[in-house]
Amino acid sequence: VRDDFRRNLTSAQDALAEQADTAAAAIEQATIALLDVDPAAAERSLQHNQALRGRLAELENKAYELLALQAPVASDLRLLVSVVRLGADVERMGSLAAHIAETAQRRHPASVIPELLAPVFRQMGDVAQQMAVDAAAALRSRDTADAARLAIEDDTVDRLRLELFGQIAGGWSYGAEAAADVALLGRYYERFADHAVAIADAVVYLVTGVSAAVSAE
Amino acid sequence: VRDDFRRNLTSAQDALAEQADTAAAAIEQATIALLDVDPAAAERSLQHNQALRGRLAELENKAYELLALQAPVASDLRLLVSVVRLGADVERMGSLAAHIAETAQRRHPASVIPELLAPVFRQMGDVAQQMAVDAAAALRSRDTADAARLAIEDDTVDRLRLELFGQIAGGWSYGAEAAADVALLGRYYERFADHAVAIADAVVYLVTGVSAAVSAE
Repeated sequence: VRDDFRRNLTSAQDALAEQADTAAAAIEQATIALLDVDPAAAERSLQHNQALRGRLAELENKAYELLALQAPVASDLRLLVSVVRLGADVERMGSLAAHIAETAQRRHPASVIPELLAPVFRQMGDVAQQMAVDAAAALRSRDTADAARLAIEDDTVDRLRLELFGQIAGGWSYGAEAAADVALLGRYYERFADHAVAIADAVVYLVTGVSAAVSAE
Repeated sequence: VRDDFRRNLTSAQDALAEQADTAAAAIEQATIALLDVDPAAAERSLQHNQALRGRLAELENKAYELLALQAPVASDLRLLVSVVRLGADVERMGSLAAHIAETAQRRHPASVIPELLAPVFRQMGDVAQQMAVDAAAALRSRDTADAARLAIEDDTVDRLRLELFGQIAGGWSYGAEAAADVALLGRYYERFADHAVAIADAVVYLVTGVSAAVSAE
């Protein structure tokens, strides 16, 4: 029974990794919507977010079902709590990608961002997408090296965001509304990246926690 | 042993409520810092946030200790998972208040917000603070009526945020940087409110969940 429980939890983590991959697809499409003024890409991003929300709700219910059937020990419980908790991180990633897609939709057929900032957003989108992929990999591999890479990528996102603020503060000629949009978009990418980091950090904690529990058994 | 566990969990919820009250104090001081250009208030807000983070970390560790000592049944586990999860909501509320305080600090001795918008931010701050107090009350009373009130307050925050966007979009004369600041501040208040709503919603779920579990015993 105990081994079953652990197997089920492991498959829950794999399911979580799949949804992190979906979050990567969601932000990829949202960035395309933003840069190419492409409403079909915005729609795809929102669909990824919907799919991800549905799967995460199922996953959480399954986690509680597991609990109802068994009386898990402490180390298993840490795993379980982490599945529920990281589910919330992945869900936020999907919502943030959706915010980006919706911003692109709201300004259509105009472009939200000035051409000048396209390279910054392109890079921000690439890094954020990669971070979701790396978070998914961390969940699958439980390799703590993934967490270290994510911390570096997170610094890149922070630096790009500062670049946006620098542009807004220095001779901005695109109007107040565009400044507000750019500030909020930068925030959405930054938070997306933060959640990817939180997932990888939790994997490190989990690996440590699980190792400690296993060696104590 | 079982009753002990449940008592401990209940005291964990009370501790969580206390931290939600601290989040209310943090956003109160942050709003004062913003409106009165008062650096001492910003400092107090940041101190509240630090205190809250420390207490929540203790609380989470205590929750895991409880787990290590006992093999709780499913209904208790839902409570426990909720303590860990709602701890994350309260933590975000503290961080968002800190972002507001830091924005005020960054522009000091200038005011971040144009005088014209002071009434909007004052109201936003009042409602957000009240929402944290109401979320704390919901945690203590487990009264589902609190959740209904929070939903209405949340609508008010959303409406105030739209008012900010309306100002930015219509004849804004305060520059791009102020527009970016105002957009982000509006976002921080909105997210703070969202987390208060999430706490109250979880209380409703918990009350339902616990009732169901108790009646099944």
